[in-house]
Amino acid sequence: MTEFTLACPVPITDYPNVLLGHGSGGRLMHNLLESMIVPAFSNPALEARGDGATLWLGGNHLAFTTDSYVVQPLFFPGGDIGTLAVNGTVNDLAMCGARPLYLSAGFILEEGLPMETLWQVVQSMQAAAREAGVSIVTGDTKVVDRGKGDGIFINTAGVGLIQHDIALGPTSVRPGDVVLLNGDIGRHGMAIMAAREGLQFESAIESDCAPLARPVMSLLDAGIHVRCLRDLTRGGLATSLVEIATSANLHIHIRENDIPVREDVRGACEILGLDPMYVANEGRFVAFVAPEDAPHALELLGDGAVVIGVVRDDRPGLVTLESAIGASRIVDMLSGEQLPRIC
Amino acid sequence: MTEFTLACPVPITDYPNVLLGHGSGGRLMHNLLESMIVPAFSNPALEARGDGATLWLGGNHLAFTTDSYVVQPLFFPGGDIGTLAVNGTVNDLAMCGARPLYLSAGFILEEGLPMETLWQVVQSMQAAAREAGVSIVTGDTKVVDRGKGDGIFINTAGVGLIQHDIALGPTSVRPGDVVLLNGDIGRHGMAIMAAREGLQFESAIESDCAPLARPVMSLLDAGIHVRCLRDLTRGGLATSLVEIATSANLHIHIRENDIPVREDVRGACEILGLDPMYVANEGRFVAFVAPEDAPHALELLGDGAVVIGVVRDDRPGLVTLESAIGASRIVDMLSGEQLPRIC
Repeated sequence: MTEFTLACPVPITDYPNVLLGHGSGGRLMHNLLESMIVPAFSNPALEARGDGATLWLGGNHLAFTTDSYVVQPLFFPGGDIGTLAVNGTVNDLAMCGARPLYLSAGFILEEGLPMETLWQVVQSMQAAAREAGVSIVTGDTKVVDRGKGDGIFINTAGVGLIQHDIALGPTSVRPGDVVLLNGDIGRHGMAIMAAREGLQFESAIESDCAPLARPVMSLLDAGIHVRCLRDLTRGGLATSLVEIATSANLHIHIRENDIPVREDVRGACEILGLDPMYVANEGRFVAFVAPEDAPHALELLGDGAVVIGVVRDDRPGLVTLESAIGASRIVDMLSGEQLPRIC
Repeated sequence: MTEFTLACPVPITDYPNVLLGHGSGGRLMHNLLESMIVPAFSNPALEARGDGATLWLGGNHLAFTTDSYVVQPLFFPGGDIGTLAVNGTVNDLAMCGARPLYLSAGFILEEGLPMETLWQVVQSMQAAAREAGVSIVTGDTKVVDRGKGDGIFINTAGVGLIQHDIALGPTSVRPGDVVLLNGDIGRHGMAIMAAREGLQFESAIESDCAPLARPVMSLLDAGIHVRCLRDLTRGGLATSLVEIATSANLHIHIRENDIPVREDVRGACEILGLDPMYVANEGRFVAFVAPEDAPHALELLGDGAVVIGVVRDDRPGLVTLESAIGASRIVDMLSGEQLPRIC
């Protein structure tokens, strides 16, 4: 039906079909976006490759972002698909340095979904929106035949207002900048995995799912020289840092001993053969800030926030990790898929 | 997992589970939205119940809207899910009287989808965006396991700028206003049904899928006194008019003889036992305009545009249809589902 005859830019011989890994935030997804989607829709906002687009519209600086949520199970310790759908998009706006204001909600429901389940999810979205200070102002509902969906998928898009002149993004990162992390990593992914696999621990691992607009606004409002913000969702801390190092063409050096991982999360990761550095979070972000601002920024981020590394100019495009015993290794992007459908 | 204990507002005894009809744009969907979604997310923008939300943001008047697209088959005469995903959201912005500017694109892909299929759809989106003058500036890609999706679902959200002071909506409609329609109805729904059922006609019925921003802007730029705009998607002409009559609390009287339906569409509807008044369109809209502006508005809308009725104050909340033989009957909203997954 389409009039185009251009060859498919993803090598068909290597990847004739879409794989789960194409949605997991790692190398496969990166290649799909870079070879097909970004060139096809080519425009400056998209090519900036942020967590959302930043746009000028009638004299205002806006952020605009979207995410679809396909998490399984729908309910997990610490949240559900509804809290995720609100906080995930709120957080992408916050990572653009924007004050999140308005959300859309698009539901794709599977025929036969219990009405009570939808109601629980809608109530979670309502509560999360209230906590994050956003309004859900427009929406859509579609229903697909039984066996053609998976209970509920939710898309949210968000609009926020950027009220400062700070250019945020990997290209603003400079040698000497300090890398801050706002808390322990790996909880969201392990909460989902534990719920999915029916793993029992002494205490349930709860997702870290939380809105991040307030901590981000506290940094910006205080005049901290923030260079780049990134939330650590699919692909985890490692993938986010590799993306930033690549775009910035700088070296990010982090120390394993400084990265907080709770004991139960570390244990669960060991059982499942996963590296917490690649596990998704839904309430964690890194902030690259000027070195002189690091102490004040840490104070503003509060309990749990830590310095995990520095930016250097000696090995452009690389992330290196100094291990607990002092050895240093190169950190790569997630390849393939580690945890499908964690958001 | 959720802390809420409110009773589900949709009567569980009547509807314990989600039905296909809850997504078909008719009475069931209307009741789900009115009893659950709108009250839960309560805010003025949502409660205006337009095709999108209109918002003030930093001194600008914006429109913001979203739709998910789950059409089957993915490709059909006259378009595919990609053209639909761009034009559908462009049209919702246009119905708010906004100039469409920016779109987001959220893909939910099923594992195993041929990469070539994705590429065709992406190219269709690119072409449709170019034709409509919008940029796709942000996006997201998720992949669900084989058997948990249906090839491709696409969500698009859109942002547009409102550059006039006309209050558009059912509450602006006045007795005496004239109802204009920009062309023949029923083609999109019948194109999908024919493709789905493998029906053969002398010539293929092509979807009317098209961007509507240009005709809408031509009316607004010319200073036509436009009261309300509505595109005739799920639920068709009949459902849109009933929604407007109800919200406006006025009587809309239309004449069957004035509503253009192509012979092949009428024939296909008869074979399938469908009423073209309830069949979805993707390039058709009604404009309610002041009577003195109707001739000029018709001229601006060009070939195919017609006057189909008038607004009266004698039977508030009703839509009546004068049939070809002069009898008059009350038109109701689509009940249940007539054509699932037509968009």
